[in-house]
Amino acid sequence: MSDTNSVKPSSTFDVEKSAFLKAITQQIRAQDIYGVYRSWTDELLLKPYIVSKQKKREIPVDGDVDPMTISRINAFYRAAAACIEKETGLLSQVVVDLNHEGFGWILVFAGHLLLIRKTIRDAHRYGFESLEKVAEEGEKLVAQAVDLTKRFPEVGKL
Amino acid sequence: MSDTNSVKPSSTFDVEKSAFLKAITQQIRAQDIYGVYRSWTDELLLKPYIVSKQKKREIPVDGDVDPMTISRINAFYRAAAACIEKETGLLSQVVVDLNHEGFGWILVFAGHLLLIRKTIRDAHRYGFESLEKVAEEGEKLVAQAVDLTKRFPEVGKL
Repeated sequence: MSDTNSVKPSSTFDVEKSAFLKAITQQIRAQDIYGVYRSWTDELLLKPYIVSKQKKREIPVDGDVDPMTISRINAFYRAAAACIEKETGLLSQVVVDLNHEGFGWILVFAGHLLLIRKTIRDAHRYGFESLEKVAEEGEKLVAQAVDLTKRFPEVGKL
Repeated sequence: MSDTNSVKPSSTFDVEKSAFLKAITQQIRAQDIYGVYRSWTDELLLKPYIVSKQKKREIPVDGDVDPMTISRINAFYRAAAACIEKETGLLSQVVVDLNHEGFGWILVFAGHLLLIRKTIRDAHRYGFESLEKVAEEGEKLVAQAVDLTKRFPEVGKL
């Protein structure tokens, strides 16, 4: 246990500073039914979100997308949905629809309002340069979604 | 060829009377790259959409959903999207996301507006009592979607 904890993530970004990063860790821990991650720090949990450009090039895009990568994508967008709910009270659904080539749609919606609509390519290589970038991207998506719910409150409640 | 044509569908509903049924056949023919269905009548093409209650009970819901069933579901909702486009000019996307238990989401959207949002259960047993019911259900969904685009034109164009 102490060995696992002593592994230092390469990024020194403080997870506590970002409500979005904290929300991702909550998503991961909620899925952790066997308690594997119980002793892990938040930083360690989030480390696989960091994939350098060099490392991305090394990940082959043929074959199925790694199930761990898919669950990372899911946790990211569920965290966004949770943050949106906190700010707006709207419960939203997350649909991640990837084909075998790692191409597909990521949709987050409440009522008849699409809060997040993204296409994804090369899902095999999903990852960010740093934790700051993860937080930045997540917070941007949440802010845009919250803005949409304010502009079209009716549609989100349909 | 004439043998295939002589198979009479059980329903006597006239496909030409329904723009929605016609749209489904166009979707199926558009996917028919080997020309297998070239000599088939529209009625024959649509016949697999008719699944009696008796027959539904006989289809097991364990195991993967039959790929032919999935493409029927896709053709149905792509036909809806095509009909919506004809009436509103809005290009929409269709996402059918089923898990291995035949449970999932069917979403049709334009811009940030969800035109159709449906959950599906027991997709293995997807089907209708008659062609009238197929047309009825499709036309209802299209009408509701067109109504949404009129109420929230801005959201559909975002």
